[in-house]
Amino acid sequence: MAVTEQDLVVRHVGDDAAPWVDTGIGIDLKVMRVDLKRGTWVIRNRFQPGVQIPKHRHTGPVEGYTLTGRWHYLEYDFVSTAGSYIHEPAGSVHTLHVPEDNTEPTDVLFVIEGALLNLTAEGQIESFTDGQAILDAYLALLDAAGMPRPSGLIVD
Amino acid sequence: MAVTEQDLVVRHVGDDAAPWVDTGIGIDLKVMRVDLKRGTWVIRNRFQPGVQIPKHRHTGPVEGYTLTGRWHYLEYDFVSTAGSYIHEPAGSVHTLHVPEDNTEPTDVLFVIEGALLNLTAEGQIESFTDGQAILDAYLALLDAAGMPRPSGLIVD
Amino acid sequence: MAVTEQDLVVRHVGDDAAPWVDTGIGIDLKVMRVDLKRGTWVIRNRFQPGVQIPKHRHTGPVEGYTLTGRWHYLEYDFVSTAGSYIHEPAGSVHTLHVPEDNTEPTDVLFVIEGALLNLTAEGQIESFTDGQAILDAYLALLDAAGMPRPSGLIVD
Amino acid sequence: MAVTEQDLVVRHVGDDAAPWVDTGIGIDLKVMRVDLKRGTWVIRNRFQPGVQIPKHRHTGPVEGYTLTGRWHYLEYDFVSTAGSYIHEPAGSVHTLHVPEDNTEPTDVLFVIEGALLNLTAEGQIESFTDGQAILDAYLALLDAAGMPRPSGLIVD
Repeated sequence: MAVTEQDLVVRHVGDDAAPWVDTGIGIDLKVMRVDLKRGTWVIRNRFQPGVQIPKHRHTGPVEGYTLTGRWHYLEYDFVSTAGSYIHEPAGSVHTLHVPEDNTEPTDVLFVIEGALLNLTAEGQIESFTDGQAILDAYLALLDAAGMPRPSGLIVD
Repeated sequence: MAVTEQDLVVRHVGDDAAPWVDTGIGIDLKVMRVDLKRGTWVIRNRFQPGVQIPKHRHTGPVEGYTLTGRWHYLEYDFVSTAGSYIHEPAGSVHTLHVPEDNTEPTDVLFVIEGALLNLTAEGQIESFTDGQAILDAYLALLDAAGMPRPSGLIVD
Repeated sequence: MAVTEQDLVVRHVGDDAAPWVDTGIGIDLKVMRVDLKRGTWVIRNRFQPGVQIPKHRHTGPVEGYTLTGRWHYLEYDFVSTAGSYIHEPAGSVHTLHVPEDNTEPTDVLFVIEGALLNLTAEGQIESFTDGQAILDAYLALLDAAGMPRPSGLIVD
Repeated sequence: MAVTEQDLVVRHVGDDAAPWVDTGIGIDLKVMRVDLKRGTWVIRNRFQPGVQIPKHRHTGPVEGYTLTGRWHYLEYDFVSTAGSYIHEPAGSVHTLHVPEDNTEPTDVLFVIEGALLNLTAEGQIESFTDGQAILDAYLALLDAAGMPRPSGLIVD
């Protein structure tokens, strides 16, 4: 129950401290923070042109900020480009798509609470992705690529 | 975008303002608050002796406070009785059971973030329950019982 | 960065596991959980009849549930009694008062995010109370009363 | 209590939809989202070289992501540059400083929960800044500059 100063300091993850890994489906991933107890995860995704993420439903809210490139949800009219911000409420259902004619990778910062419920075409839950799952996947991909496990990830 | 004073006042739900409904499976339900955008829901459950809730996984944290009775999780050693508090981290998996030899209903206050992923015996996700689903169920049960919809629920 | 099973288990604080301490101002206190990193604290307050808490402003939302007794805010019309629930949005400003003619202690469960900013009559901030402060106060009062520090508090 | 589809859709704020305003102290500000009820605010700050923000304490956690430039806290060793992420726990106390020899503005995205308690040199609370205050300031600065109020801000 002791509270050390160390517990409460600001944590910093430099751009190089969390390396990119290739997930093999046109998406690079880096994980900066996972709060397992609260179910919050902070990641960046770098999407190749033409990538589409299957339709999913969120169990908590999401913050998104686009750093480079261009993407949209099939269900919405807006197109997100560098400097644009999105807020997704809990219960949001959408299909992320990256235009085929993009001329650069699409780099997006996400702060996600809870899980993605991945849906079949019939709307059934096929699987879910949460903070624990994304952390496990990130570490496994680093291992598979022979890359060292980063010391600076923020995992609580 | 205007912010009215009304938006920011404290909201009060008296014990009678949110009536109990019988869910038909040995559990009475009342809903006090649902924050749809954040995915947070505040309810009370009143369990009859012998009730068991199928195993589920939480996508967010849970606060629980027992008002009367006695219950436990099959996966844990503790027994929760009147006055005891629990905190469940995101990712928790458990099976709530109410002892058959209880001599009174077991009344528990829950503050839940995110969804319950209801699991089959093989660990597959069968369905999910979230704030929208519990609100819909509560209102449908009130309607079916011919009870008026309560005016005081906090739904954002 | 290792994640042990222990980190993610449900935590239980029985009614006796967090003893009451007398704060000396007509309020007994017990602390069940403090999440220092998020600034969330879960406590119970047992107010004697006639107690009034100076006006304060909350920096985050609050859940409240009344277990016994009767109380109100000077700024609102509602009276909270056993079984009633309140939700306070961030930015709420109010003065808690317990009627002098109450015939029993008023026992209230609070889940508080962030800090109380304690205000002078002129509306200036005099001091603040947050999760760290309440934990420090609780442990100091236990020490002063010669009571052992409870092993079961949930402090992250 | 009716829940419209509109309430639950993803919200998008393009880079131009929330214009920069000059706060007059070497910091440009844009506000993308304020959740008044929860006390969460999402902003960008563009700092000129040499700017220093007085020491403050946070009542809730903060996410920060640096888009351009370079900054640090006087109390810490790390230097944040483009692509670096920080997480500040509730209770953090620090003094943000932007080096005088920076050759470009320092643009940082912040997601802030709760309030900043601005401290005097003696550690007393001088004032506070929260979501409501930042929204009021942003709108007043837009008005003073003769700029139209943006229609797309996310204010709940």
